[in-house]
Amino acid sequence: MKKIINQPEAVVEEMLQGLVYAHGDSIKRLPESGVITKKNKVNGQVGLVSGGGSGHEPAHAGFVGQGMLSAAVCGPVFTSPTPDQILAAIQEVDSGAGVFLIIKNYSGDVMNFDMAKELAEMEDIKVDFIVVDDDIAVEDSTYTAGKRGVAGTVLVHKILGAAADQGATLTEIKELAEKIVPAIKTLGVALSGATAPEVGKPGFVLADNEIEFGVGIHGEPGYRKEKIAPSKELAQEIVSKLKLAFDWKSGERYGLLVNGLGSTPLMEQYIFTNDVGLLLEEEGLVVEFKKVGDYMTAIDMAGLSLTLIKLEENEWLDHLNYETKTIAW
Amino acid sequence: MKKIINQPEAVVEEMLQGLVYAHGDSIKRLPESGVITKKNKVNGQVGLVSGGGSGHEPAHAGFVGQGMLSAAVCGPVFTSPTPDQILAAIQEVDSGAGVFLIIKNYSGDVMNFDMAKELAEMEDIKVDFIVVDDDIAVEDSTYTAGKRGVAGTVLVHKILGAAADQGATLTEIKELAEKIVPAIKTLGVALSGATAPEVGKPGFVLADNEIEFGVGIHGEPGYRKEKIAPSKELAQEIVSKLKLAFDWKSGERYGLLVNGLGSTPLMEQYIFTNDVGLLLEEEGLVVEFKKVGDYMTAIDMAGLSLTLIKLEENEWLDHLNYETKTIAW
Repeated sequence: MKKIINQPEAVVEEMLQGLVYAHGDSIKRLPESGVITKKNKVNGQVGLVSGGGSGHEPAHAGFVGQGMLSAAVCGPVFTSPTPDQILAAIQEVDSGAGVFLIIKNYSGDVMNFDMAKELAEMEDIKVDFIVVDDDIAVEDSTYTAGKRGVAGTVLVHKILGAAADQGATLTEIKELAEKIVPAIKTLGVALSGATAPEVGKPGFVLADNEIEFGVGIHGEPGYRKEKIAPSKELAQEIVSKLKLAFDWKSGERYGLLVNGLGSTPLMEQYIFTNDVGLLLEEEGLVVEFKKVGDYMTAIDMAGLSLTLIKLEENEWLDHLNYETKTIAW
Repeated sequence: MKKIINQPEAVVEEMLQGLVYAHGDSIKRLPESGVITKKNKVNGQVGLVSGGGSGHEPAHAGFVGQGMLSAAVCGPVFTSPTPDQILAAIQEVDSGAGVFLIIKNYSGDVMNFDMAKELAEMEDIKVDFIVVDDDIAVEDSTYTAGKRGVAGTVLVHKILGAAADQGATLTEIKELAEKIVPAIKTLGVALSGATAPEVGKPGFVLADNEIEFGVGIHGEPGYRKEKIAPSKELAQEIVSKLKLAFDWKSGERYGLLVNGLGSTPLMEQYIFTNDVGLLLEEEGLVVEFKKVGDYMTAIDMAGLSLTLIKLEENEWLDHLNYETKTIAW
């Protein structure tokens, strides 16, 4: 393992210190916690809280700011934060309008966020939540019952964040979340495994000419290994699987997110985006929103994912384009 | 070589197509060229043009937009664009106020941008330029006489872009450029070499436990190889070299840019930033601007660089913080 770190067991602590050192003008950290919040609380707005294990940077702390998250709870690498940390975030961002939790579907996160919700409700804080399960690769996985939550979660942050910033109530945010999450689907391909610092070696190893479709963002197994193919063929595989999942029709409106998994050069991400764009054009889809870059990573995994959102309502596109002040959107 | 590409010789063409597909709302490409410009020309402003070989994404096309560059000229991978391409960019962005060229110090870029300047002047376009040589690692290098131009170039884009957007004349921009470039210095460390697609293997290979200080952004040799050390010690080495170069005194004002070289996780970048921040605090420097992320990469090189700018005038900090609409700032 060759990494720019100090002690492997201190990576999250030191990363959070670095994050606050670099961006202390817009975010703050609750003392001795993994909770990053907006520097200034906005009274009257619903608070939006997300988070999970660390190792997915810039998610989730990079999306704390006006128009997106109110707080991100950063657990140990690839490990859910504890309920008391999530509770601290809820308490901090509540200003009477309630708090909405955006949870990626992993058993640990679902359990701990739910426990924090119950603790907060005992303090008379209104809390509601959504579980994001956008990854269409596999049903059930190493850490998950059902489908996994991956890069599409960032679009949920963005859309709900715009709604909250414009004064949506907790009930309205819940309704919006329940509509958008089924309309967001993701599939990825990995060229290499991720090395968690405390583990010291990759979670899985692919041969020099091998890729794997559908790997999760912690290195959970995908659905097929094969010899690496040109970008066009990778795009074809991923788009065809998404087509089946959406059952789309020509003329429908979509948004796309091409997400690098941590060590994939932007050059490759744009080449892949180009191939995806050509395929979606052939399908007759109208792609009205596009985003390319590293948003939900798996530390140093090479590879990328494609997320599509079916834009069923004009408002969703407005929310995606709504002005946002964060570190990483 | 395991990369998400199609033909190695088509990577730049397909990347540019993907870039325009993804960001066609804000940028456009001059037909059959490597020139990316703002979608809408702003009359009366000095045009700012930068560029160079591709492989440094998001530089430079990612910095085209309001408050930064008017155009970026994208050459083949690690190879200067030709004078006719640079000339086309100059012609496109000139609106009578003249055009200013920001050139990284590589012999090919300096020669070709200079030739384009002469061609443009024959068409009565006013052109001036600055050569950025912020890398303090070595004097003269594989492709360079003098010091290399690296990540600090992005700060030059930002400061001059803010000035141009606020109506600075060509003469004023030249004066500002001549003041800021000597105040910007960079030093980096590599953990791995970069693989250019048409070459198919890394430009250099480091052992599993080896790093190299001062490697250039095309893989040019640095000044020392050694066994990898903790982030704190890497930061100590780099900060001490920058201290010598600046000859700084306690109380002086600086800005910093920690720049990932392409496949370095943000986790490592923030840990390193934290270590740098502690060292600069010990030195008594007042760090008033901070930026962390991938801004000037070497395709898939692992490693990072630290750029410091001595903030000699308040205006420079205002320009760094000036509102900007680009893909990647």
